[in-house]
Order: sequence, then structure tokens, then C-alpha cells
Amino acid sequence: MDEFGIIARYFAPLATAPGAFGLTDDAATIPARPGFDLVVTTDQVAAGTDFFAEDPASTVAQKALRVNLSDLAAKGARPEYYLLNLALPRPAREEWLAEFTRGLSEDQRQFGISLLGGDTSATEGPLSISITAMGFVPAGRMVTRSGAKLGDAVYVTGTIGDSAGGLALLKGEGKGLSEMDRTYLVDRYRVPQPPVAFGNGLSDIAHAGVDVSDGLIADLGHLALASGVGIVVDAERVPLSPALRRLWGADTLARAVAAGDDYQTAFTAPLGLSGPFTRIGRVQAGEGVNLRVNGEEVVVPQPGYRHF
Amino acid sequence: MDEFGIIARYFAPLATAPGAFGLTDDAATIPARPGFDLVVTTDQVAAGTDFFAEDPASTVAQKALRVNLSDLAAKGARPEYYLLNLALPRPAREEWLAEFTRGLSEDQRQFGISLLGGDTSATEGPLSISITAMGFVPAGRMVTRSGAKLGDAVYVTGTIGDSAGGLALLKGEGKGLSEMDRTYLVDRYRVPQPPVAFGNGLSDIAHAGVDVSDGLIADLGHLALASGVGIVVDAERVPLSPALRRLWGADTLARAVAAGDDYQTAFTAPLGLSGPFTRIGRVQAGEGVNLRVNGEEVVVPQPGYRHF
Repeated sequence: MDEFGIIARYFAPLATAPGAFGLTDDAATIPARPGFDLVVTTDQVAAGTDFFAEDPASTVAQKALRVNLSDLAAKGARPEYYLLNLALPRPAREEWLAEFTRGLSEDQRQFGISLLGGDTSATEGPLSISITAMGFVPAGRMVTRSGAKLGDAVYVTGTIGDSAGGLALLKGEGKGLSEMDRTYLVDRYRVPQPPVAFGNGLSDIAHAGVDVSDGLIADLGHLALASGVGIVVDAERVPLSPALRRLWGADTLARAVAAGDDYQTAFTAPLGLSGPFTRIGRVQAGEGVNLRVNGEEVVVPQPGYRHF
Repeated sequence: MDEFGIIARYFAPLATAPGAFGLTDDAATIPARPGFDLVVTTDQVAAGTDFFAEDPASTVAQKALRVNLSDLAAKGARPEYYLLNLALPRPAREEWLAEFTRGLSEDQRQFGISLLGGDTSATEGPLSISITAMGFVPAGRMVTRSGAKLGDAVYVTGTIGDSAGGLALLKGEGKGLSEMDRTYLVDRYRVPQPPVAFGNGLSDIAHAGVDVSDGLIADLGHLALASGVGIVVDAERVPLSPALRRLWGADTLARAVAAGDDYQTAFTAPLGLSGPFTRIGRVQAGEGVNLRVNGEEVVVPQPGYRHF
């Protein structure tokens, strides 16, 4: 089956938006939505770097998509469309494509989005997936990294470090961990859980926001730098799952905040908010990010993932 | 230099649109433009498939960008923005990046576009570049593949086959060809010349259009299928460059119309138009594409490039 057959059979059914033309044209259209800005983000993932080549194709698809939905959530945007570039090692296996597109289809239903276009080609290298995701925010209301205000509280959704815990398990750590904890953590590595529905209302409450993908401390550092402020994180407030604590014990906090791949949203907003998030710190004058345990600084061993 | 340094030094200067936030945020914004549709397309290129790893970095950049601008031109859209995902083999060489971004910068000036965002990562595979390009057309006026009308003339911009000729030279054909012809053809392979300015007005004249990237006959076949019509191409009218004729002699037409990588626009429109394009055929009842030389059919040896 060549790429035209692959597109017609596996991808065209995902192109539900009218502007996608059923993937039978050279481009897609997005009608102007007066009063809204289109928010656009793009991320690529590759076998051996962001997932394992032998991971289930459905979770590979969902990870590739959700790392992008995470960016939209952190910006307060409601996702609508995505474009998919797939570089596949030969031969293209139909059962893999069926499972890959099943994962996409499930996420399209869950998040209310449509495939809009893409490109499928063969590669001599590892499987790689490049996705561009798009959504809408009220005009001028994208939650930027630069809007943090002195006195803001710092909040984060979900729990931190689970994905890194799952990766550690897949690399051989934690032999004694229960099957339930193992499943929970590996699932978090394979299928991120970005706060998409929550992100839809983020622009109503947040002054600044960032996608936690490079590591909590590293990404808060990006936000602090863009906002020209300092951030203090109270170590005991960082949300850590019981499974992760059982895996890493006393090292949990130090490893979790330095790991990446969380795909949660960290944001600053007025004190006293409650919702599906945890207050972990505050914005103050200065620069950079301090992590405090009982008033003392903890050294963060690594400032986040770097490719080079 | 890690990817943060690479982005700050080489890519941020290209992000001239306000909505790109200088590449310091997780996403970019595009304000709604009432009365216009955003047209979106994405294509990836890879070393060893679409260019040679040792090609000049500036031409690699321009090819990656222009294959996308070609799609926008064929749809009648005026380009405005692009996103760039770069998967770089390690180590990332600064002189390569400097040259790569110089190529992008030149094209941004020439075409009036801005980098809007992207993602830079390391790869164990060949260098690959995935670009999403965006532009605007008046609302509802994208030139689709499906609008061809019976009796339309078929036109094409530029000349056909030059890129394939350049590739043939790089693979060892045409040892006796002059240096001038060689340079002309290799340049066409390395740096496509999509009709971007012309495309801007295409929606005023064309009923249907397609980007010539898989091969003239193959792409007209896509248009014919989408429009539910047949197309006859008059072989003697297909625009062929003198350099290509000197390279391929009597085989020129047959090879040129089956080759890919042209990145010109083929379109259907009323008879009798003149402009920077050539009339090559007509739309009739039926299906598929016939190539006629003095009333006789010529067999097209290959229906266009396929990855698998």
C-alpha cells in the first residue's frame, strides 16, 4: 500500500472538519473566527527519544498528539485541529497504521478535534511524528509566559514526575514495584494526560502559564525569565503520586522536579484559588527558581532535558 | 550549544511576527482576519530523499520552505507564516545552522513571511525538516482540486522536469552537458521556484489548481479525479527548458511529465488567458489524463513518486 492508499484508508476518516477536504487537496482552510485568535503550536516526537519503537502504536499516536494539546492547554486555548507529518520506516505495516489511527480517533473524540492535513513519507531513520495543533482563545487572551505578577501564587495541574518514573521502569529500575504502580507510571509515560478541558478556561484566571515538558523547575525558570520575576517552589507542596513515591522513596522530589515529559500546566494566578490544581509556590521579586524544603534550598540535579 | 541557545541565536531573529513572541513562548497566535480563510499546508523533507545531506544548508532550508509555499500558491493563498520542526543529527554544527537560517532569512524577505514557531531536536536518523506554512485567501475562495469545469483550458506555470534533470545530473547522468546547463538544472533541484506572487491572484482566474510535486501527469490525475473530469495534455505544449532538452534529448517529454519535484502550479481556467503560464491542455468529459503527441497517446512510464 503506497502513501495515497494509506491516506485514503487510514487518515481520511479522521479528517472530519469541512476545511480538511477529506485530505484530497493540497491544503486545508480555517475560517476566520472574529473575536478569537488562533493559537498554533508544533512538536515532534521520535522513536528512541520520546517513546520506544515497540510501544503500542495507539499510545505513540496519543503521545505525539497530546504533547501538542498540552501546549494549547497551558495557553488557555481550546483545541480544534491538528496536522500530522509521519515519517515511517519501511515497510509500512497496515496493522501498525490501523492501531496508530485508532489511537488518534479515540483522542479526536475525547478532545473534540479534527485532523486537518499532513504528509506521510518513508524514512531511513527512526519513526518520527511531527504534529501542529491549533485552537482558539478570545482575542488577545492567550496565557503567555510573561504575565506573572509579584505576589501571584504558582499552581500546577496533575502530579509531577510520573512519566519519568514510567521511563525509569522501562529502563529497568524498580524491579520490586507492584504491577499496579508499574502500570500507572508506564501509562503516564506513554500517554500524557494534559489538562485540556481545564485549559479551556485558563485565560479567565491565570496571569501566566507554561507547559511542563522540560521539567517543572526548568519550565518555571522559562516563565520566570519571560516575566522578569523570581519563583519560590515549596518542595512539600509539589504533587507527587503515591506510586512514584514508592518507586523513588527519598529521591522522589529531587528527581521529579528535574524530569521532563509531564505535560501538565504550571500557571501563576491570584492566591486563594481552588480547582483541579495544586498551589506549589509564589512569585516574588528577583529571578530564577528556588526550591525550598523547610526553608532550605535543595539542589536540583539537572535543569531539564536537552537534546544537544 | 543546546537547543535553547540554537533557538535564541539562530531562529528567534526570524520570528518577526508579533504573534510569534520571539519564540519565547509555548505557542504562537494568529489574529482572526475577517473576510479571509487561513490556508494551511504541511510537508516534510529529509536528507537522502528530497535533498542530499551535503547540499548547501541555505538551499536545504529554501527547498523545505518552498515546497510548502508551492502548495499555498497552487491554492491561491498569500503566504504569511511558517512553523519549522528540525530534527538534526548530532552534533549540531553552528556554521551549518548559520547558513541554514541565512537561507530562511532570504526567503522570508523575498516572500514577505515570518517564522511563527517550531521545535528543534536531535535525531539518530537523517536530517529532516517538517514545515507548516500558512497564508490567507478571501473567504471561501481557496482554489481547490475539485472545481475544474468542462471546456476549461489547463495551464501550468514555469517549466516541467528541470528538478528531475538536476537530480539526474547529481546522480551521474549528462557528463557532457555544459556547466551553464548543469548549474541551471541543479539549481532547480535544490531551490524550487514556486509561483508565489502569481498564486496570490490565482483565485481570481482559476477554477481548480494543484501543486505539481508528484509529477505533472500524476498531479493532473489528482485534479481530474477530484473534479470528476478527464484531462488531455498536448505533449508539444508542455513547457520544457532548453537545458533539459539538451540533457535528455528525445526522452525529455516522457521523463519530464513523469518526474516530480517541480513545485509549479497547474490550474484550469477559461480558454484564452495569457500570463506567466502556458496552456497545455483541456478539460473534457471522462476521467484520467491522456497525453497526446500529434493525436497519438504516449505511455507515461511512471505515475509519479511514491514513498512505499
